[in-house]
Amino acid sequence: MLNKIEQFLDHIAFPAKPEGLYEPITYSLEMGGKRIRPVLTLLAHNMYKPCDENTLVAAASIEMYHNHTLLHDDLMDGAEVRRGKPAVHRHWNANTAILSGDTMLIESFKLINSCTCRRADEARRLFIDTTIEVCEGQQYDMNFEQRTDVTEAEYLEMIRLKTSVLLACAAKMGGIVANAPEADCNALYAFAEKIGLAFQLQDDYLDVYGDPAVFGKKIGGDILCGKKTFLLINALEHASAEQREELLSLLNNAVILPEEKISRVTDIYNALDIATLTQQRIAEMYDEARQHFDAIAVSDDVKRPLWTFAETLLGRKS
Amino acid sequence: MLNKIEQFLDHIAFPAKPEGLYEPITYSLEMGGKRIRPVLTLLAHNMYKPCDENTLVAAASIEMYHNHTLLHDDLMDGAEVRRGKPAVHRHWNANTAILSGDTMLIESFKLINSCTCRRADEARRLFIDTTIEVCEGQQYDMNFEQRTDVTEAEYLEMIRLKTSVLLACAAKMGGIVANAPEADCNALYAFAEKIGLAFQLQDDYLDVYGDPAVFGKKIGGDILCGKKTFLLINALEHASAEQREELLSLLNNAVILPEEKISRVTDIYNALDIATLTQQRIAEMYDEARQHFDAIAVSDDVKRPLWTFAETLLGRKS
Repeated sequence: MLNKIEQFLDHIAFPAKPEGLYEPITYSLEMGGKRIRPVLTLLAHNMYKPCDENTLVAAASIEMYHNHTLLHDDLMDGAEVRRGKPAVHRHWNANTAILSGDTMLIESFKLINSCTCRRADEARRLFIDTTIEVCEGQQYDMNFEQRTDVTEAEYLEMIRLKTSVLLACAAKMGGIVANAPEADCNALYAFAEKIGLAFQLQDDYLDVYGDPAVFGKKIGGDILCGKKTFLLINALEHASAEQREELLSLLNNAVILPEEKISRVTDIYNALDIATLTQQRIAEMYDEARQHFDAIAVSDDVKRPLWTFAETLLGRKS
Repeated sequence: MLNKIEQFLDHIAFPAKPEGLYEPITYSLEMGGKRIRPVLTLLAHNMYKPCDENTLVAAASIEMYHNHTLLHDDLMDGAEVRRGKPAVHRHWNANTAILSGDTMLIESFKLINSCTCRRADEARRLFIDTTIEVCEGQQYDMNFEQRTDVTEAEYLEMIRLKTSVLLACAAKMGGIVANAPEADCNALYAFAEKIGLAFQLQDDYLDVYGDPAVFGKKIGGDILCGKKTFLLINALEHASAEQREELLSLLNNAVILPEEKISRVTDIYNALDIATLTQQRIAEMYDEARQHFDAIAVSDDVKRPLWTFAETLLGRKS
């Protein structure tokens, strides 16, 4: 399935010129990544009928859009590295990230516009509405950097917009292209939306409590860059006045050793039992995802690969 | 006609939140401007049938896209002022220009996607292909900043992509939405494309030879910022070795008084008779535009407003 997607993405023909516009697009697409979103589209489609050209076009449009957001978000967030390589705005420059990123956004629309499935109108509307929501999510994420009073509900809505709705769109898109019943399409959406939330909360959790060998990133990265994660937001919300003051002063402390910062923030998380709270929320999201998955009116055998994929994403064994 | 467009643009409903995302969009749309592109769409449509909701939707999509390019181009080009007000990246910041600009690009697709005219597929394809060309034009424009050997042909192709094709798209869009014959749609495209080229060359010309009272900008602005205009490119191409050296050293001279720089560059333009060459090219473009206009199979009475508008753009009396 991943092969099909890679082949299709390799196949998209960009003009040779201007090189400065198209080389960064190829660079971004060739970086690979897990292709989670197009895989979701293909898995969902496969539950109803075998994938065809329209499935691949729709899946690729979502992956193209996702890669567009990486170019622009890395620039906005000042992230230097993407998938182990220099981000586009570092390998080239800010203007390249902006303009090649814009071109990828247009190319994503070009792809979804070339989807000729029976419900192409619905597919385009879903795509457009979703991409606007993703912009809103990124805006909230940037707003939250300036705030220390973000609530859990606000945080969950932000990650829903920034991350989950695109996964939800990807799964529902498979249903739409396969002309699945509306109820199934909506269940696919809700299922992937909850999986996305669980995935993001787990990402926040693993940054502090993960096994570095398994997680693939250094532990405490979010703490060091002062990222407003689910853990930090809940710690700030539930802390005593004293703990809150210590947390805020630690976050603003630029001279403290990194290991000490991570260890002292983690101590506060532990004192407040943020790990249990986070695991509870993840379990809730996971259960909700399962309920929506169960509502999909397709036999268990046919559904299984989609659930297995979701479990793999969350690092759970089936 | 302008009223209809303003009313429609005012009418587009954006969510109240997040404010940081949508306020800059309203700020940009409320700046006004000449609305040249949507007027072209409405004028072209009117030649075949009265404008309706679909015409306004299509016209607004092009204006929305145009405003998106202003947010991103001003950021990339470091332009501080737009229509007498601070550019979005100055009034807010770079990230705002990027993300609100992205949202405007998506909103432009949302608009064209809501056009339900009979040839909506063709309208969307034209829109998408055009917006990709505009990105290519901006890339060439940025590339040219680093070069001193840009040819006239390269320059014309750059301004065609960066400026003309969107005007051409706007005019043809009116024809498509009105379900005009294909030959007319193509003539509308070619007509507006040539008018766009003439307009851009005239803009380059007036920067040096214009009447500041009429032109509305200070004379010599392009010379001071070393912009690769039609005049400079031709001067570099036709200059003697000595003149070329003087031109290049003047362009790189950061200590010379502005008035002296303008006057000495203009002296070289005069010695090479660049003004006549430019006027010749403008006249050629104008004549070609007229030929395409004449090919539109509609009675003169009905066609007249479109030609009058083109003449107004070029500051010519009819």
